[in-house]
Amino acid sequence: LQPVSSTLTDEGLYALLDQKTKPPRSLGQLEGLAVRLAYCQQRVPPSIDPCRALVFAADHGISRLGVSAYPREVTAQMMHNFASGGAAVTAMARQSSIAVEVIDVGVDANLPPLPGIVSAPVARGTASFIDGAAMTAVECQQAIDVGRQATARAIAEGCQSIAVGEMGIGNTTSAAAMLCLLTGCSASEAVGRGTGVDDQRLMDKQRIVAEACAFHATAVGTNGTARDAIDVLRRVGGLEIAAMAGAMQEAVTARLVVIVDGFISSIAALVALRLTPSLGPHLFFSHRSAEAGHSRLLQSLDSFGAHATPMLDWQLRLGEASGAVLAAPLLRTACALYSMATFEQAGVSKR
Amino acid sequence: LQPVSSTLTDEGLYALLDQKTKPPRSLGQLEGLAVRLAYCQQRVPPSIDPCRALVFAADHGISRLGVSAYPREVTAQMMHNFASGGAAVTAMARQSSIAVEVIDVGVDANLPPLPGIVSAPVARGTASFIDGAAMTAVECQQAIDVGRQATARAIAEGCQSIAVGEMGIGNTTSAAAMLCLLTGCSASEAVGRGTGVDDQRLMDKQRIVAEACAFHATAVGTNGTARDAIDVLRRVGGLEIAAMAGAMQEAVTARLVVIVDGFISSIAALVALRLTPSLGPHLFFSHRSAEAGHSRLLQSLDSFGAHATPMLDWQLRLGEASGAVLAAPLLRTACALYSMATFEQAGVSKR
Repeated sequence: LQPVSSTLTDEGLYALLDQKTKPPRSLGQLEGLAVRLAYCQQRVPPSIDPCRALVFAADHGISRLGVSAYPREVTAQMMHNFASGGAAVTAMARQSSIAVEVIDVGVDANLPPLPGIVSAPVARGTASFIDGAAMTAVECQQAIDVGRQATARAIAEGCQSIAVGEMGIGNTTSAAAMLCLLTGCSASEAVGRGTGVDDQRLMDKQRIVAEACAFHATAVGTNGTARDAIDVLRRVGGLEIAAMAGAMQEAVTARLVVIVDGFISSIAALVALRLTPSLGPHLFFSHRSAEAGHSRLLQSLDSFGAHATPMLDWQLRLGEASGAVLAAPLLRTACALYSMATFEQAGVSKR
Repeated sequence: LQPVSSTLTDEGLYALLDQKTKPPRSLGQLEGLAVRLAYCQQRVPPSIDPCRALVFAADHGISRLGVSAYPREVTAQMMHNFASGGAAVTAMARQSSIAVEVIDVGVDANLPPLPGIVSAPVARGTASFIDGAAMTAVECQQAIDVGRQATARAIAEGCQSIAVGEMGIGNTTSAAAMLCLLTGCSASEAVGRGTGVDDQRLMDKQRIVAEACAFHATAVGTNGTARDAIDVLRRVGGLEIAAMAGAMQEAVTARLVVIVDGFISSIAALVALRLTPSLGPHLFFSHRSAEAGHSRLLQSLDSFGAHATPMLDWQLRLGEASGAVLAAPLLRTACALYSMATFEQAGVSKR
């Protein structure tokens, strides 16, 4: 892990919080977050506001094989729902004063211009990765750039944090295949029920992932370099996953806090972290998903230098950045600890 | 558990959420909270706002035996810190638009009038419970009434929820003794480090609790009735613990949401629940404390009909209602789920 060049250190920040009127470290994980937020932003107090949720949407060739409980058309239908504010993430973000920007990176539909939706399609979805690559190298890079540009817009408009999530029918299958190829875990470990497939479809989904991984495994290098991560992304990933990875990488340029959503966002974080190791301190994992492979994925993120202990363990499995938006107020409260009085200021006896 | 008389049922509320544009139950514990909030308040959408933090403060006779890492004077010193907004709970509540009312139920000091502090002392702290009762029956009832009145004020001023917490040097020792006498667990299971005592003082603390429980055990009935709970509270409890129990009981009268803080607030919740079984649906447990006995206590609350799975597991051990204030925005987000569109409204395909 490449440390950011810093004057504020973890030790110094903990020492600052230890002077506040509370038994040292008595706010547990909240103090850990307060320290990590200030370290990431290199300022006291840190702030996540304004916070913008970036929701990247795209379709997947693999969804034609029936890996999801929902039809492929739902990705496009949900774009209208995001635009009119009826989706989970829009309802939750409204409550928490978080702006939502939805980016079409490759939805398979002729979408009209919609309020709050940025149209930046790279293709009308990916190709099926069962026996070929999901994207060309050019498409993959374009999708990464779409993500980078979304974060660059947020930075230009003063945002201090981004909550990163996705929409794309079929994308837990894609993320599971990426997890297998990036970490060497088995399809049965990586594949879960996604939006809620039954036992039969779960077995089909595992078989499809195992087959696809067998097809791609020989071509993918296994020496753990950044090059491999891009190759895995291109072969079995998705346009929205590539865009999320790009969005996260770009966050480093302005010391943004990156609030990572669930399983699919986390696989994008793993790619981004392998390409940009200095991203580590910026990543804040909102929750441990109910999706089967997420715990394994968080372990892998941890081993690459991210602090991947998630804030919540609530069996969420929706996506859309909903978990990241849910957790954002917890980070706001962490920032507020710096406004506490010290023992000296308050005239309170230390032990 | 006495069910509240209701037209909204858990089943009906889940059915309502299942129509929203998300895979059914894909928001896990957040949906559970949304259902419980609406059930508790018997309205859709539910709301926790305005939310008021009630922080009850009092001293403990037992603190003269050196059970805390901090001197007894800190209780009074912290009252000034609450008044000037420098304490953890005040800093956190400010961030989350939650009003804080601190109630002096028995701080051992001549406090001047302070902004935001309600003066309602029943005594200048409790007596040591090592070989006698902490409170007289009259004192105990008066303290309960102080709590009831605080909630009644919140109700009169339109509050929809209360976050309940405490301040009182020595009160983890009192709460541990209550836990032993109420559930039959051992002192070594119930006693933790509180504000952070060292190994020697931890052993002393365990010995003191074991001794006190041996003294009081024969006098306390063990047939699990409400009467016993009051008797345990009076014998080894604290004025602020009694007040918290009263505050929680009163919440039922106006269907308030009660956000419970950590170990000491939870022991008050157990007393309140045994006295008023219809309180069950109102209790929302914010976090699993780092304090040793809290997991055992949450189990006991569960067995008395509370839904005692806490929202956060963050190793908090500060008190002051800080954990309850931290968790409050999560409940706000749960309320916001009711503003999502249905599949029909949004024109999104169901599976």
